[in-house]
Amino acid sequence: MNGADALIETLVQNGVTACFANPGTSEMQFVSALDRQPAMRPVLCLFEGVATGAADGYGRMADVPACTLLHLGPGYGNGLANLHNARRAYTPIVNVIGDHATYHRQYDAPLNSDIPTIVKPNSVWVKSADSADEVGAVTAEAIAASYGPPGGPVSLILPADAAWTDTAKGAARSTKPTRAAPSGETVDTVAKALKAARKPVVLIGGRACRADALREAARLQAAGVRVMADTFVSRQPRGAGVFSPARMQYFGEAALADLEGTDLMVYVGTAMPVAFFAYPSRPSVLVPEGCETTTLATRAEDAVAALSALADALGAPASGPSNPLKLPDGSPTGPLTPQACGQSIARHLPEGAIFCDDAVTSGGGVAVPCMTAAPHEVLALTGGAIGIAMPLSIGAAVACPDRKVISLNGDGAGMYTVQALWTLAREQLDVTVVVFANHSYRILNIEMGRTGAGNPGPSASKLLDLGDPKIDWVSMAKGLGVDAVRCETAEQFDAAFARAMKTPGPKFIEAAI
Amino acid sequence: MNGADALIETLVQNGVTACFANPGTSEMQFVSALDRQPAMRPVLCLFEGVATGAADGYGRMADVPACTLLHLGPGYGNGLANLHNARRAYTPIVNVIGDHATYHRQYDAPLNSDIPTIVKPNSVWVKSADSADEVGAVTAEAIAASYGPPGGPVSLILPADAAWTDTAKGAARSTKPTRAAPSGETVDTVAKALKAARKPVVLIGGRACRADALREAARLQAAGVRVMADTFVSRQPRGAGVFSPARMQYFGEAALADLEGTDLMVYVGTAMPVAFFAYPSRPSVLVPEGCETTTLATRAEDAVAALSALADALGAPASGPSNPLKLPDGSPTGPLTPQACGQSIARHLPEGAIFCDDAVTSGGGVAVPCMTAAPHEVLALTGGAIGIAMPLSIGAAVACPDRKVISLNGDGAGMYTVQALWTLAREQLDVTVVVFANHSYRILNIEMGRTGAGNPGPSASKLLDLGDPKIDWVSMAKGLGVDAVRCETAEQFDAAFARAMKTPGPKFIEAAI
Repeated sequence: MNGADALIETLVQNGVTACFANPGTSEMQFVSALDRQPAMRPVLCLFEGVATGAADGYGRMADVPACTLLHLGPGYGNGLANLHNARRAYTPIVNVIGDHATYHRQYDAPLNSDIPTIVKPNSVWVKSADSADEVGAVTAEAIAASYGPPGGPVSLILPADAAWTDTAKGAARSTKPTRAAPSGETVDTVAKALKAARKPVVLIGGRACRADALREAARLQAAGVRVMADTFVSRQPRGAGVFSPARMQYFGEAALADLEGTDLMVYVGTAMPVAFFAYPSRPSVLVPEGCETTTLATRAEDAVAALSALADALGAPASGPSNPLKLPDGSPTGPLTPQACGQSIARHLPEGAIFCDDAVTSGGGVAVPCMTAAPHEVLALTGGAIGIAMPLSIGAAVACPDRKVISLNGDGAGMYTVQALWTLAREQLDVTVVVFANHSYRILNIEMGRTGAGNPGPSASKLLDLGDPKIDWVSMAKGLGVDAVRCETAEQFDAAFARAMKTPGPKFIEAAI
Repeated sequence: MNGADALIETLVQNGVTACFANPGTSEMQFVSALDRQPAMRPVLCLFEGVATGAADGYGRMADVPACTLLHLGPGYGNGLANLHNARRAYTPIVNVIGDHATYHRQYDAPLNSDIPTIVKPNSVWVKSADSADEVGAVTAEAIAASYGPPGGPVSLILPADAAWTDTAKGAARSTKPTRAAPSGETVDTVAKALKAARKPVVLIGGRACRADALREAARLQAAGVRVMADTFVSRQPRGAGVFSPARMQYFGEAALADLEGTDLMVYVGTAMPVAFFAYPSRPSVLVPEGCETTTLATRAEDAVAALSALADALGAPASGPSNPLKLPDGSPTGPLTPQACGQSIARHLPEGAIFCDDAVTSGGGVAVPCMTAAPHEVLALTGGAIGIAMPLSIGAAVACPDRKVISLNGDGAGMYTVQALWTLAREQLDVTVVVFANHSYRILNIEMGRTGAGNPGPSASKLLDLGDPKIDWVSMAKGLGVDAVRCETAEQFDAAFARAMKTPGPKFIEAAI
């Protein structure tokens, strides 16, 4: 057994069995060791941003980390943006970053770079396993660290010589940390404050938006407390039988208008809400003036236990509201709009589907009708770095092979990691990709006005418009091996989406909105 | 004038007139300010790795930095790998990285990250312009810093409020630093050592491989001194009338065999040669045992002056050897190979063409016949992070609109930044893209054996093979707006390449080798 074997054995023995990889020379020992441990599933991605986004999707759905295999500093760099998103989703991921042999680092060869510094901002743990004998123990530590709580991506740097040197130490066991429940005193204090408040809000996020926690949150709502959820949540159930808390508005002034009069905000699994961006003369903090704030459970604590105890303390009923099943009346007709797409999607959605949503300005049209569709889950863009929905869908499909995955993309966002389509084809994953092709960074046309920058003139327009030339998404998707169709009317989309839901395997739909 | 205006005015007044951009909300003021300064050419890239690679190509050809416009930490991350390459090419680039408003940073909004840390390893200078009044001066400093010497990418962080706030300070002037020539004493010492050595080598790299320096290096060769060049050079002339120094071999043991008996190595514009990767029981340092080494000129010094003075000190003739013009006999026939492509390329190459080369295992077949083709220049992959040749070609074509640009790509490498094709189409740049489609990370099959990892088994093969599904490059290129053709025989390639050389604008050729 060499260091690479010790790494893979430790991963597999601790439940890490999916590897999203884009290897290079310094990772050849790891690649070779995969042949000796078939329990690890290698999934090749043609760009590292696909690999890291896939690992995020896997971790969100499996609650167990996947590993990535990345090629030194530049390979990690290519995956950085989706690791930024994963950090904001608190997703456990074990990044394995190959490095030069320890003795070779000093020579500053062309691919050498300061890996510990590059990885630091988006890693909750960083260590280099500089000898084969320590690889097992360091890997076990990495896995544990990825769980947090609250968890996140870790960076395990593996020098080539640590990988190729023999070791007798072998694999090591890792322990999965538990999440503490808030104390009874904390629960009582919060309950008392809620009772005393005129217009309180309980703001939930992260783990407090998972299925089991949402059921407890619904009890609070039933007890007369307004429950709201973060704007972007890593994983949240939606649809019939599911409690739908109000969502924090994206734009700050709308959020504050919605919160007007709120005199107490209680955070569960999240923290103080802030504006996504700053704008001249608009608020950064989305808590009304004079509103008290307190935390029932941090992101690291047990949100289910916290919400359940709080509901009990408030004498809430055993269950709260949930959405009815109500499908749209009939199929959409006429010009294709995000709303028409949403109507169609809600109609044909199979139970247990998983949405990966990076459809910046078109996603809302889908969300509304899906509130009362068959129950499903939604993985949102938590960190604002677009280009995640296709990669995320790879990981979700690998983690949940029996569930239909739907990847919703803006065309601007979809172009970032379009290489993901090839992996969908190669692995024949059950993913339907929808790209809303408006041939524009439409959100930026909106944001430009808000930042006080005025209307776009000729130069500015050149940086916001994607329509010259118009991307032929169907041609691109077919080129990458995915069955693809363009829909220009609601009828076409309805038929294509229905077909995609009925047949397994990767499908691509260009929604020409 | 606001801070964004001050930034763009300072850039333009100091000769920075090309902006490769992928903006977001935090960059809207910059985008808007472009409308008020038409001298700055905005070029939209659909992924930041395209923007940074394009800036590298521009900087190598113009010897003046382009600027990039990147969206916070994740946007920079997407461009990191090609900035790693640019750092290794010592290319001046001014990265403008939009950030949250200074007062908003403290709230750790979703897109917030530690930008100074992320950018540090690949920046020769980092500063945040935290107020509108300082933007002009900081920008002038950034431009100067990008020149070095030896130069490289700089990172100018621009908070949104510094961009949108008015300022009376305006633009600032920058100074371009000069490169010092080595002292007469250094030249004399090196000349004496060269005369005393039995088998000396002068190793040139970087600036010492530019046209004017190469002419001086040829004089050394004429005086009986062996001149060698680094394996990967940022910009080097090639072809008829050009001196072709021997190249350092890629694999360490081959390099040392080539250097056997060398008792003195003199570095000009480069430093000690080292192996690209470490392998078990193979050398890291590519200097023979017992060989003396000395530096005539560092990367920061004036390589032309250094080589000229050394040639004079050695009493070298006024000019040295250069390649004859000798085109291949006839057009290639039969199955398509990299060699057949090379034969065809050499035949049809127009004078002054610019090659952007990231064709990992296929590039050699082109290089050999081009040695005696019409004179041209070659931009190589200096940092080993694949995915540069299409982005690089954008920048080279923007910098040199009257020259034909040829982008050579491995298929694995080409997929990294395939979004570049869209920008070629949008800007109608005179670039011919060739992708050598062997449907494999072929270099890794070679490297796997060298690292002692054995032959790939089923899992390992899954990470090295790109053939399932086979990428349809023509479909993809057409989808992104570029006229494309697949060539399966030498005859087809010869006809397609000849046509591409005769007609301006973007062309795509899939070479099915």
